[in-house]
Amino acid sequence: MSASPESFESIVGRFPCQVHWGDCDPAGIIFYPTYFRWMDSATWAFFASVGYDAKRMRAEHLAMPLVAAQADFLFPAEQGDRCEVRSRIQRFGGKSFVISHEIVREDATALCKGAETRVWGRFANGPGTPMKGQPIPQALKDSFRAR
Amino acid sequence: MSASPESFESIVGRFPCQVHWGDCDPAGIIFYPTYFRWMDSATWAFFASVGYDAKRMRAEHLAMPLVAAQADFLFPAEQGDRCEVRSRIQRFGGKSFVISHEIVREDATALCKGAETRVWGRFANGPGTPMKGQPIPQALKDSFRAR
Amino acid sequence: MSASPESFESIVGRFPCQVHWGDCDPAGIIFYPTYFRWMDSATWAFFASVGYDAKRMRAEHLAMPLVAAQADFLFPAEQGDRCEVRSRIQRFGGKSFVISHEIVREDATALCKGAETRVWGRFANGPGTPMKGQPIPQALKDSFRAR
Amino acid sequence: MSASPESFESIVGRFPCQVHWGDCDPAGIIFYPTYFRWMDSATWAFFASVGYDAKRMRAEHLAMPLVAAQADFLFPAEQGDRCEVRSRIQRFGGKSFVISHEIVREDATALCKGAETRVWGRFANGPGTPMKGQPIPQALKDSFRAR
Repeated sequence: MSASPESFESIVGRFPCQVHWGDCDPAGIIFYPTYFRWMDSATWAFFASVGYDAKRMRAEHLAMPLVAAQADFLFPAEQGDRCEVRSRIQRFGGKSFVISHEIVREDATALCKGAETRVWGRFANGPGTPMKGQPIPQALKDSFRAR
Repeated sequence: MSASPESFESIVGRFPCQVHWGDCDPAGIIFYPTYFRWMDSATWAFFASVGYDAKRMRAEHLAMPLVAAQADFLFPAEQGDRCEVRSRIQRFGGKSFVISHEIVREDATALCKGAETRVWGRFANGPGTPMKGQPIPQALKDSFRAR
Repeated sequence: MSASPESFESIVGRFPCQVHWGDCDPAGIIFYPTYFRWMDSATWAFFASVGYDAKRMRAEHLAMPLVAAQADFLFPAEQGDRCEVRSRIQRFGGKSFVISHEIVREDATALCKGAETRVWGRFANGPGTPMKGQPIPQALKDSFRAR
Repeated sequence: MSASPESFESIVGRFPCQVHWGDCDPAGIIFYPTYFRWMDSATWAFFASVGYDAKRMRAEHLAMPLVAAQADFLFPAEQGDRCEVRSRIQRFGGKSFVISHEIVREDATALCKGAETRVWGRFANGPGTPMKGQPIPQALKDSFRAR
């Protein structure tokens, strides 16, 4: 009997970030799309950590377009706050996957919890040309598995 | 018998926007946090349309901090695409509300469907000072009601 | 005797824009890189107005990478301000050009004056591949000339 | 005889940064306003390094609004590039200052050289209220002086 897709036990990616002046709005707190920018960067860094860095993604014409994204905002971050995005593969499908992100301030305050649903895709003929979903290589899936 | 909160029939806000070069990523399509930037702008424009414009919000120390945001990405927008964010109040609570956004290209292609959950808040002492949730005025709720 | 390059008398591009909540910083005024985002968008819109829109630029593998950019900030814009970027070709070189931008609020207050120096370039093999400067077509130069 | 203002010998601030997917445009290289975002962040980090961090700036109602900004783009950065902004006080005036920034890739390639002219200002009554230029404290100037 195999484990259900939901039970994937993922390694944890750690992406450090900081709230900058221009990331905040006139309320003096983080402007919420900043969290999504961080999640996107954290996903790319997570994949780089298992061998799929920007250079390789470009060379192999790979990208990870979004199907959906979602976040709950738990506590307002302010300029200067040092944070970490903790990313986990929540679920692998055949050509798509869900990656969850928890954003935590250095004093352990949880700021945001979110998730992205993405497709594993390849450009037909380099960036800017049409992209098509690809089966996610088993080796790639395995490299995210916690031992 | 009163209508359930879910049945709120909202007017529709229309916020025009366009995909610019810098809104796109190396895949040649819109970078997804751009959609959330647009949703935020559309919400402010929607409230301005019923009398709560930026000037008044500032003068009365009001803001609309986020509790959650979510989006499904249906079709990739490209540089130059002219779009419209169509916003509706989906639900009013006592101090919070849900606003849904549909982003449509000028040829009627649906690009994105999303929603924001927000609090109606007031700064204790002007922007940058602590914010507290406020009961949403009935007159404000009524101004969003479709006749 | 021909006119000096500096004397190019340009048509004026007009790019409407508005200061949104997320364009402002905790000081309650526009975050300055927003002006550069607008200048970039205004340049693309200016070129679109003479026939080089995003679709054609993509199809012909053209881009306009920056060599330099500069701005003087004259007056602080606030959320809700409606503005216009007024763009002019200041100078055409062989493969590069200078485009000046004046950003004006709807009440005629000058907010910002800036300029970009750009190269007229073509990707060797589609976006993402190396780009090389190209002679600016005379017809393109002429289309920016005020009559 | 005192040194001329131009001869200020500054310590060097070092702000690490990385080019993310969403910082790049469809040409596959950095979208230029990103450099200005980095310069702004580097300036705040530089001031934090001498004791004026975000918390203190907020508490004392201080900000550093821009008068001008400028950059030369020397080499196109790509996704994944790790960089450093090296900041120096170029000149202190009475209430304003010029800060220069050199952005260098980890392999020592110079990517961008820029400068910001800023005012040292205080909000009359907290963020969002009018700001007025202030004499730059001598102790602050001294803290940036290379020994």
